[in-house]
Amino acid sequence: MKHIGVMLGGPTDLWPSTLHSDNDAPITDWLGVDRGSLRLLEKGIVPVTAIGDYDSLTPAERRQVEHTVHDVRYAQPEKDDTDSELALQIAFEDLRADEVTIFGATGGRLDHLLVNLWLLAEPRFKEYADHVAIVDRQNLIRFYLPQAHLLFPETGYKYIGFVNLTPIREFEIHNAKYPLASFTSDYPVSWASNEFLDDRQPIQIAFTKGVVAAIYSKD
Amino acid sequence: MKHIGVMLGGPTDLWPSTLHSDNDAPITDWLGVDRGSLRLLEKGIVPVTAIGDYDSLTPAERRQVEHTVHDVRYAQPEKDDTDSELALQIAFEDLRADEVTIFGATGGRLDHLLVNLWLLAEPRFKEYADHVAIVDRQNLIRFYLPQAHLLFPETGYKYIGFVNLTPIREFEIHNAKYPLASFTSDYPVSWASNEFLDDRQPIQIAFTKGVVAAIYSKD
Repeated sequence: MKHIGVMLGGPTDLWPSTLHSDNDAPITDWLGVDRGSLRLLEKGIVPVTAIGDYDSLTPAERRQVEHTVHDVRYAQPEKDDTDSELALQIAFEDLRADEVTIFGATGGRLDHLLVNLWLLAEPRFKEYADHVAIVDRQNLIRFYLPQAHLLFPETGYKYIGFVNLTPIREFEIHNAKYPLASFTSDYPVSWASNEFLDDRQPIQIAFTKGVVAAIYSKD
Repeated sequence: MKHIGVMLGGPTDLWPSTLHSDNDAPITDWLGVDRGSLRLLEKGIVPVTAIGDYDSLTPAERRQVEHTVHDVRYAQPEKDDTDSELALQIAFEDLRADEVTIFGATGGRLDHLLVNLWLLAEPRFKEYADHVAIVDRQNLIRFYLPQAHLLFPETGYKYIGFVNLTPIREFEIHNAKYPLASFTSDYPVSWASNEFLDDRQPIQIAFTKGVVAAIYSKD
C-alpha cells in the first residue's frame, strides 16, 4: 500500500499530533504544495515532489526547496487547475497512491480550504473519493458516493458531522444519536455534532445522488 | 448603527488582530456562543447574551459564564437549530443588529465552520446576506445574492476568492486579474486567488441565481 501525504501551506499548529495516514500507517512518500514543501523541510522531511507557483515564498525559501527536492514542478497562477488539483492528480497518477492523506488544509486561507474540501465533488476526482482523507488537529474528513456506507467510530473523535458537498437526494442517517430521515436538497447543509451510539456500533448512511463528506471531530 | 459581534468557539490565535466590525467600526454589543462566551470573558469583554449548550465547558467555566453574563440562554443539543443559527436570529431579531460580524468561526471543528459558512444560503437568512461578515486572521468573508455587485479592494488583503454556496447560474467576474465568463453549475466551485487590478478599481460580479461568498484573504 502506498500512502501518499500531501502537505499544504496551512499553519503547523493545526497539524494533527502525528503525521500518519488516515489509517494510522506511516506515510510512504510526501508531496509538498507551495509553502507546504518548506514546512516539510523544516520538519526534516524531504518530499519526493514539490508543486506550486511558490509566489508566497521568499527567494531564499524558494532556493531551499529547489536545492533539496529532486522533483520540483511549477504551476502557472493563470492555470485552470489549482495546486491541490495538480497535487491530487500527481499523487494518484504519477506516484501511484493507494491512499492520500491531506495535511495543512486548514487554518489558512479559506478559499484554499474550500478548493480542497470540494476536490472530491469534481467529476474527474470522484473515483478517488474512497481513498482521500483530510486531517488536522481536530478533524478527520472522509468522502462518500452513493449508495450505502457503514462508518465506524474512531478513537479520540467524539463527534461526527455530515455535509453534502453537492445537491443531494434521499440522504439518511441510521444508528446514530441524531437519525435523519430521507432528505433531498439543492442546498448544502452541515449536520454537525452527531455522535455514535457507542464505541463499537457503526453509523449507517445512504443516499441516491450526490457527494457527502463525513467530518470526525473533537473539541 | 448597531454592530453586533458574534464570538464562536474557534481558537483565539486565528482571531484577527483587532475585534472590530467588518467596516472597522467598534462592536456595539457582543453575543457569545458556547466557548466563545468564555473567550470573550477571558479578554475582559462581557457579552450581552450567551447562547449554547455549554457541554464542552467544565462546570467551573460554565459557572463563570452564568455568573457574569446577564442574559444566558440554553440551547438543546437535540434542537433543529444550531447555536449559530440561534445566534444570528438573536442578533438580528432581539438585539436589532444592523451589521453582524462573526469571529472564532475558523480553526476549530470543520462541521461548525461549514454551518457558519452556509448560514446565509438558508432561505430564512438570505435577507441578512448583505449584513453579515465572517472574519479571522487571514480571511474576510462577505455574502451576495443576485444580481450585480461591485466589490472594492480592502487594505491588507491581497487575494479575493469566490465560492458558490449553492447551485449557481450565469456567474461572471469582470475587471479582475482572472475574469470569468458566464458559469452555471449545480456543484460548488472555489475560484481561489483572484486579485484586484489595482488598489482602487472594483471587481464586478453578477449572477442570476444562487448565493456567492467573496473571500478576501492574505498569506
